[in-house]
Amino acid sequence: MNPIEGHLSTRSPLHDILAPTGIAVIGASADPTKRGYKAMVGLIKDGFRGDVYPVNPKADMILGVRAWPSVAEIPGSPELALICTPAPSVPGLIRECGRRGIQGAVILASGFAEVGGEGAALERQMMEAARAHGVRIIGPNTSGVFNLHHQLNLLALDNVKPGGVGIVSQSGNMLLSLALEAQHNGHVGFSTYVGPGNQSDIGFNDYLRYLGEDRHTRVATLYVEGFRDGRRFLEVAREVAAMKPVVVYKSGSTEQGQKAASSHTGALAGSYAMTVDLLKQSGVSVVQHSDEILPVAEGLGLLQKAAGKRVAVVADGGGQATIASDRLAEAGLELAELSEATRARLREVLLPQASTVNPVDVAGSTDAHPSLLATCMEIVAADPGVDSVFLVGMFGGYSIRFAESLLGDEMRGAEAMVDLAHATDKPLVIYSLYAPIQPPALRRLHEAGLPVYASIEHSVRVLSALGERGQYLAQARPQAREVSVDAHPELEATFARARREGRDLFEYEAKRLLREHGIAVPEERVVREAGELAEVAATFGDAPLAMKVVSRDILHKSDAGGVRLDLVGRAALEEAREAILASCRAYDPDADIEGVLVTPMAKKGVEVIVGVIRDPIFGPVLMFGLGGIFVEILEDVAFRAIPLSRQDARGMVAQIKARRILDGVRGEPAVDQEALVDLLVSVSRIVEAYPDLKELDLNPVIVNADGYAVVDARVIVEREPLHEESPA
Amino acid sequence: MNPIEGHLSTRSPLHDILAPTGIAVIGASADPTKRGYKAMVGLIKDGFRGDVYPVNPKADMILGVRAWPSVAEIPGSPELALICTPAPSVPGLIRECGRRGIQGAVILASGFAEVGGEGAALERQMMEAARAHGVRIIGPNTSGVFNLHHQLNLLALDNVKPGGVGIVSQSGNMLLSLALEAQHNGHVGFSTYVGPGNQSDIGFNDYLRYLGEDRHTRVATLYVEGFRDGRRFLEVAREVAAMKPVVVYKSGSTEQGQKAASSHTGALAGSYAMTVDLLKQSGVSVVQHSDEILPVAEGLGLLQKAAGKRVAVVADGGGQATIASDRLAEAGLELAELSEATRARLREVLLPQASTVNPVDVAGSTDAHPSLLATCMEIVAADPGVDSVFLVGMFGGYSIRFAESLLGDEMRGAEAMVDLAHATDKPLVIYSLYAPIQPPALRRLHEAGLPVYASIEHSVRVLSALGERGQYLAQARPQAREVSVDAHPELEATFARARREGRDLFEYEAKRLLREHGIAVPEERVVREAGELAEVAATFGDAPLAMKVVSRDILHKSDAGGVRLDLVGRAALEEAREAILASCRAYDPDADIEGVLVTPMAKKGVEVIVGVIRDPIFGPVLMFGLGGIFVEILEDVAFRAIPLSRQDARGMVAQIKARRILDGVRGEPAVDQEALVDLLVSVSRIVEAYPDLKELDLNPVIVNADGYAVVDARVIVEREPLHEESPA
Repeated sequence: MNPIEGHLSTRSPLHDILAPTGIAVIGASADPTKRGYKAMVGLIKDGFRGDVYPVNPKADMILGVRAWPSVAEIPGSPELALICTPAPSVPGLIRECGRRGIQGAVILASGFAEVGGEGAALERQMMEAARAHGVRIIGPNTSGVFNLHHQLNLLALDNVKPGGVGIVSQSGNMLLSLALEAQHNGHVGFSTYVGPGNQSDIGFNDYLRYLGEDRHTRVATLYVEGFRDGRRFLEVAREVAAMKPVVVYKSGSTEQGQKAASSHTGALAGSYAMTVDLLKQSGVSVVQHSDEILPVAEGLGLLQKAAGKRVAVVADGGGQATIASDRLAEAGLELAELSEATRARLREVLLPQASTVNPVDVAGSTDAHPSLLATCMEIVAADPGVDSVFLVGMFGGYSIRFAESLLGDEMRGAEAMVDLAHATDKPLVIYSLYAPIQPPALRRLHEAGLPVYASIEHSVRVLSALGERGQYLAQARPQAREVSVDAHPELEATFARARREGRDLFEYEAKRLLREHGIAVPEERVVREAGELAEVAATFGDAPLAMKVVSRDILHKSDAGGVRLDLVGRAALEEAREAILASCRAYDPDADIEGVLVTPMAKKGVEVIVGVIRDPIFGPVLMFGLGGIFVEILEDVAFRAIPLSRQDARGMVAQIKARRILDGVRGEPAVDQEALVDLLVSVSRIVEAYPDLKELDLNPVIVNADGYAVVDARVIVEREPLHEESPA
Repeated sequence: MNPIEGHLSTRSPLHDILAPTGIAVIGASADPTKRGYKAMVGLIKDGFRGDVYPVNPKADMILGVRAWPSVAEIPGSPELALICTPAPSVPGLIRECGRRGIQGAVILASGFAEVGGEGAALERQMMEAARAHGVRIIGPNTSGVFNLHHQLNLLALDNVKPGGVGIVSQSGNMLLSLALEAQHNGHVGFSTYVGPGNQSDIGFNDYLRYLGEDRHTRVATLYVEGFRDGRRFLEVAREVAAMKPVVVYKSGSTEQGQKAASSHTGALAGSYAMTVDLLKQSGVSVVQHSDEILPVAEGLGLLQKAAGKRVAVVADGGGQATIASDRLAEAGLELAELSEATRARLREVLLPQASTVNPVDVAGSTDAHPSLLATCMEIVAADPGVDSVFLVGMFGGYSIRFAESLLGDEMRGAEAMVDLAHATDKPLVIYSLYAPIQPPALRRLHEAGLPVYASIEHSVRVLSALGERGQYLAQARPQAREVSVDAHPELEATFARARREGRDLFEYEAKRLLREHGIAVPEERVVREAGELAEVAATFGDAPLAMKVVSRDILHKSDAGGVRLDLVGRAALEEAREAILASCRAYDPDADIEGVLVTPMAKKGVEVIVGVIRDPIFGPVLMFGLGGIFVEILEDVAFRAIPLSRQDARGMVAQIKARRILDGVRGEPAVDQEALVDLLVSVSRIVEAYPDLKELDLNPVIVNADGYAVVDARVIVEREPLHEESPA
């Protein structure tokens, strides 16, 4: 099964705070409606093995534990304090905690920065106290924490069991929902939970890092409403994902949801599609339905990753085999083509009416012999053309549906599946329609760490996540950091000049920047005087040319009549130049016009766009898509954080829905996709080398079988001071 | 709540067969591994109140019931026989059943037509016997039947309870899966189940009709792998859907799934997208994930339909309110805008920090007073701007999570929700994260017929289905059958001539057909001699013209060089005609060329296509989509069965993903969508009026703000004899 794959080098202070030898419960209470009661119950019931110090000036004993009138009077030295008292008491209590050597405090109260005004002031006071006394803060306004491997159940959740799923959730109800789902299905266990609350000290990224380091956590599971330092999150996620799966559910996939989220958290939502792309780029398994979070986390935590997309289905009913096939195809997974040898082995054990073409349908062969399903799984798992095995049907229920006497054979089948799971490096994903009632064979599988799913849809989601994770790790490991490039001094000077002049790069400057760094830009000439046109016409010969105005003041060249196409010969060039100048002067009499740019018309091909934006959350991001309606109407674009690897770039090209157009339609040859990949990687390098480049827009780029041509290029220059400038 | 809305006029023979006063179990057995044992157990355990006649020549008693050596010796007159014996015995047994007056037989054995050869012969013999003796056949090769309201549980399923969900499933495992899901959630009950098997006598459509008539069935739920008479299915579905919801899960949504299905059923799959469109057109609620079948069936069976798409969310946690908002938007539902009066009423009962903007977030107001959630639901349900109410959060779990003392108030809340459900005509959809563990308040809701869902995703699917059903019924009711048109005698003659000549209609004939029936086709002239061009040029004046070859032998005019565009004046027309004729003669020297067609160039606009196909399963189907890549790459097309109503046509235009282009992008005005609707309805009428029209293809049609222009029209003529032809 799935071992944890490595360790981070540094160590989070949360390890000591969340695995304390003692805890002070400030505001502990005997009133069952209070959180200070709940926490005490949770600690006692789960058998917390450290010292518990209830702090309450009005009580001597709380739930049989001696209480203390103040933090100062506690005899021991707990690492952690749970503060259950109202907001105004918190700054003072933090000071007291600090003086007692308490390292961390979980603050439940709301009424801090999230309510503004006085609350914000209170939060500042709290943080001043925390910094002054070296107390780390979880919250305030947190739904709480637990560390079940340390019997630290401050939420007093019932019936949660220790296991490998670690959770950070910006919604307390979401944690509760996952816990109840786990209680119901009876087999998912948890490691640590943290509700980050206002994150006034320890932030989301720290919690993720902690889950990455925590040896009990096999999978880090995050419910996120909004990122603060998204760029840093991507870095931490990449580090953690190299060791263990990171599952993220990000809310706000729609404008309606973003509005709802911002009304209750004030978080900046950003583009959901972009967020998903960037998370995946960093190795995160993104879950898009809330009811898939737990199944996917459980599966990723327990099962082997899949080396590829080829799934072998073993089914005992044709209908569900069909449903499984549909869902696999929709998820981008394939039915593995079984080898003739595999099929022969299946024929040996199955009845003649069985189908040995994937999806394998045993067609009654197992009715009196359910353990044969395990044999079939073993046979297909041995096929080198198979990456994962998917059991679909009524395993576990044969002894219920057919005859009780089958129980022994069914248990042998379960045992064989457990053995197979240990012996193979391929994941076994098991769907059983009997999963909801947990018969003995399925309980045995659960005990052995083989999850059994109650929904074909959820099973396929798990298979898909295992495949994506396998692919990510395979690509991420050998992948060297892409070489970076150095900025060219002349081009740095160009940026500096543009900044001084308060303008963006001229198109010809932008193109020189591209050309300088290996991007194929068609030859072009800036013409300032009519007299230069004769030589230009001679240079380009019979090739039809395009002419565009060059002016810092005219951004929308076409609207200004600043573009003329299909020009051949000197006379046509001269006429076009006159027309462009006249039209642009009419459009904006004050425009400062440098001249016109002349370039050969692009060859026929597919229009794509390449863009760079500076996202306020995630920093520089590259965008790629097909031009025109694909971007504008269908929003069919791919995003990756810069810097990006060749694999990232290939992923962008492969990801867009209209990729069939790049593969060639209507008899057109496929476009040169590797050239496109070169282009994307080169743009990424340029963005890294020139911090003054704020945004970039290559639109359109014409791609065809011979390569690409950048037809239009815009570079927006950073206006905010990034570094010291020498005086002009 | 949701009353059953009407009754069909005729009555299916299945009512007597599936609610018999007596049943013969042929092949009854005391061996627990046999189906003949299971069925006996099911009848006895569920307390079947009619007479049971085990038939087995080797036993006197089976499970305490007197057995009979043969059907002939049974003393009573059962309406139903369950035949558990192998295939070869069946034809003889059917004869015996017929002689004893048995009206229907359920035949479990496989080994009939589905295995071909001898099996097919056996099935023919069986059917001959059935017809000769008036015995109706369920199966053979059926997974079985039950009628729980008649204690007739021939499948011997455990723990299924009587209720309103009727099921026809081409997969036995699917039924089993639904039954186990229902057993697990503890509240869904079933009426009748039928496995149609080989459908050698009674077919899928008959079973649907029966479920429509059955008074215990509140919702007809179908798992379908392939339709036989799809057109008839659509008619029956329409009739049943007028009375009660029809839920269909159709497998084979992908090529991979279709291949899997056809390998095990041999059924013809057809286009999934088309099937979904046609089912919806007939009022069917189509479910696309197998784990949504039961929640959607339960919700549609129990809850009010929604009059519109405006959902009011009442939540006790911001995170889940956000998730709900996301899912609603993705499902095409809206967050209702609550009136100021509604918000004022909410503010009266909630704490100041609560959000009274939809999604309503009580923000702690209900922590000590959970019944306030019911009050909020009542307030928003009273808002005329709200079509349905969605409760999201931890209702039912307050007494578990906060304090046991809250149980009383929580039960009062449940009671208030039940009262509200009876008082309002809006659906109340309830999600609770405590649904998996069924606390008392949620059990109370279930008992009162208010389902509680354990997944936000499934709840939203139910809301969406309730909204679609409301919309369907609102549109279907007042909708008069669209007027039909009569065929024009001259055009009938044109079809007859084309048939005689073994060709399709010429473009000008196709356009005359369209024009004759009110479709706006640009003026055009067929030119047979060069001499006619002068007059043509004079007629059209300065308008740029298009010229195309007219030839029965040249289908791809552009490839043959048979199209010239943008022609102005006589000289250009003459030159173009010569060029077209020369090019087409070179392309196909044997082509019979009638002349050329001249027509004004279409104005600028959006290219759409309108097509008619004759689907082998569903008959004549209209297709609509945007031209070019939208159809070819994105498969963004809508389908409706002919005849279609204006509502259907509006639905087609509204449905395509690229509809934003029709609404006007890049500053273009919206196209005239009502003209497009006229066009679609007119095409539907033409197809009805001319049975010789096999296929039709208007591609492209240019639409703009002023209307549309049919640029090219092809009509394929039916070659098979449809009706008597007069001798030529």
